[in-house]
Amino acid sequence: MSETEISSLGEFGLIDHLTRDFKVKNASTLRGVGDDCAVLDYDGKRTLVTTDLLLEGIHFDLTYTPLKHLGYKAVAVNLSDIYAMNGTPRQITVSLGISKRFTVEHINELYAGIYAACERYGVDLVGGDTSASVTGLLISITCIGEAQDGEIVYRSGAHDTDLICVSGDLGAAYMGLQLLERERVAGAGQEDFQPDFAGREYLLERQLKPEPRADVIAEMRQLGITPTAMMDVSDGLSSELLHICKESGVGCRVYEDRIPIDYQTAVMAEELNMNLVTAAMNGGEDYELLFTVPLTQHEKVEQMKTARLIGRITKPELGAYMVARDDTELEIRAQGWNAFTNA
Amino acid sequence: MSETEISSLGEFGLIDHLTRDFKVKNASTLRGVGDDCAVLDYDGKRTLVTTDLLLEGIHFDLTYTPLKHLGYKAVAVNLSDIYAMNGTPRQITVSLGISKRFTVEHINELYAGIYAACERYGVDLVGGDTSASVTGLLISITCIGEAQDGEIVYRSGAHDTDLICVSGDLGAAYMGLQLLERERVAGAGQEDFQPDFAGREYLLERQLKPEPRADVIAEMRQLGITPTAMMDVSDGLSSELLHICKESGVGCRVYEDRIPIDYQTAVMAEELNMNLVTAAMNGGEDYELLFTVPLTQHEKVEQMKTARLIGRITKPELGAYMVARDDTELEIRAQGWNAFTNA
Repeated sequence: MSETEISSLGEFGLIDHLTRDFKVKNASTLRGVGDDCAVLDYDGKRTLVTTDLLLEGIHFDLTYTPLKHLGYKAVAVNLSDIYAMNGTPRQITVSLGISKRFTVEHINELYAGIYAACERYGVDLVGGDTSASVTGLLISITCIGEAQDGEIVYRSGAHDTDLICVSGDLGAAYMGLQLLERERVAGAGQEDFQPDFAGREYLLERQLKPEPRADVIAEMRQLGITPTAMMDVSDGLSSELLHICKESGVGCRVYEDRIPIDYQTAVMAEELNMNLVTAAMNGGEDYELLFTVPLTQHEKVEQMKTARLIGRITKPELGAYMVARDDTELEIRAQGWNAFTNA
Repeated sequence: MSETEISSLGEFGLIDHLTRDFKVKNASTLRGVGDDCAVLDYDGKRTLVTTDLLLEGIHFDLTYTPLKHLGYKAVAVNLSDIYAMNGTPRQITVSLGISKRFTVEHINELYAGIYAACERYGVDLVGGDTSASVTGLLISITCIGEAQDGEIVYRSGAHDTDLICVSGDLGAAYMGLQLLERERVAGAGQEDFQPDFAGREYLLERQLKPEPRADVIAEMRQLGITPTAMMDVSDGLSSELLHICKESGVGCRVYEDRIPIDYQTAVMAEELNMNLVTAAMNGGEDYELLFTVPLTQHEKVEQMKTARLIGRITKPELGAYMVARDDTELEIRAQGWNAFTNA
């Protein structure tokens, strides 16, 4: 790969270079990159806005994160927030801080991932800001989406007797991170080190290239399921359950034997001598959808292929507990990832 | 000032702490901080989106930038982009990366400035992301605004014979930066050093606490002036004139003796032995509005208190030139600030 210094293009040159081939996909994008603002037309719809910041050394390690995957993931985690409101993502802005060790080719790779995610989920890149940084790479993405007025699902809508569901499986992204860290440490200083990822591809994919669950939203619409509350699982199921309970003023029971866990996650937990349920409940970065539905939609939920029932909402005074396989109740505590204490 | 470690609050604690007293001001803000997304209602209006990234060591130096001013400026530069489209800013998201040397009290100061700007310009804080950073402070702000369909002013609308106007005065923010840098160098290592800013307060204010020109937009509306093209002056008048010429496919003539320059700017340029017109044309960070109006609105423009006529738009083949006091024509070149080469 030939190397081009970013300073040879300058800020405007870099933006032109990165955005010139990008085609607008949404009718709501009236004007994208190239003026003081993007101009959007959300006539008759609600506008959703979410933003995420990813920092090198805090949220990602370029030793084992390919830049293309990083770009894809940076978009994916924002889209996940829009889907978590039952909305449709339409536009993103991408701001980058880039230190001197990165070349134009590096940033091309990052944008290849950003564009791949935009392409897959039908999202337009409409603006951003690009700057040198003193140390490392930082990515700040804002996503704008739309939703019909009555369709937006908040965290605060869960009621006593509602069913609790979660999509996909949990803990795999966390196990992928543990695996990557183990191999990084094992290979430190060895130039010809070959990391051992055989049979663990799913864990890596979950960590490095998560997919926002547009398919879960689509399946719910198809089955006529309307969630009462919803959010995406980014900090860990425990943390998110407590958010929904707090915002909705309710309690919950989730059943240990219903928590969806992939086979590779279980094998890896065994190998690392970690508690599997703790990893699934607190691991984070799953980007699955956690949602509640009225009890009357029980049969419809049972038909879902992308999500499963894991528990039920209770009156607030009953608290938030996980019911273990032996029927003991364990209080749910937020042990989710904290960017300030884990750093 | 007592000191509280940010890790003692955690991310959610910090966000709660920072946002709990913030009152929503706009009817279009249906839901702000506290869910996966903000929810906005821009029914019947166009949505404007802009974003800016401010990095310590690149865009600001905390040796001489009070955190409260920095917060205010970070919001102001985003609002300036919305006004530059002839829109009204309504919501912002604020993402922060914060290294360990900052305490909760520091971030309170930063937010005091953010809130002061929100208050003054009627803007709601509706979301964001907060994280530890390995080094220094970073601020990424996205601003959402609204405009009526036919009222949006792009960079691309200037026509031959249009008049070119600019608000306020130019070069003062750049001179303020030179002054702050001079005093920083002079005072380095001296604990009891007193910087000498007497008589230079305007330059400091322009650098540290710029105001977006909502008043210029208001005055134009009041006088019935409709700009054909507009942008804000962030990288320097030369750079912005070339943007408008390129986007509109036109040329321009601006007159040296019409460039608005404050007395303090002139005195400082003399003192620093710098070319005054170069500073005014290329200094940057003025956050004034540069706009063009049809020739037929000449009399209305002459009545404006917040802006003045500095030149005219020409056919593209005539190029972009500044007409000096001695009537020689100097080609306008972009020498604006470049975050990649100046870093």
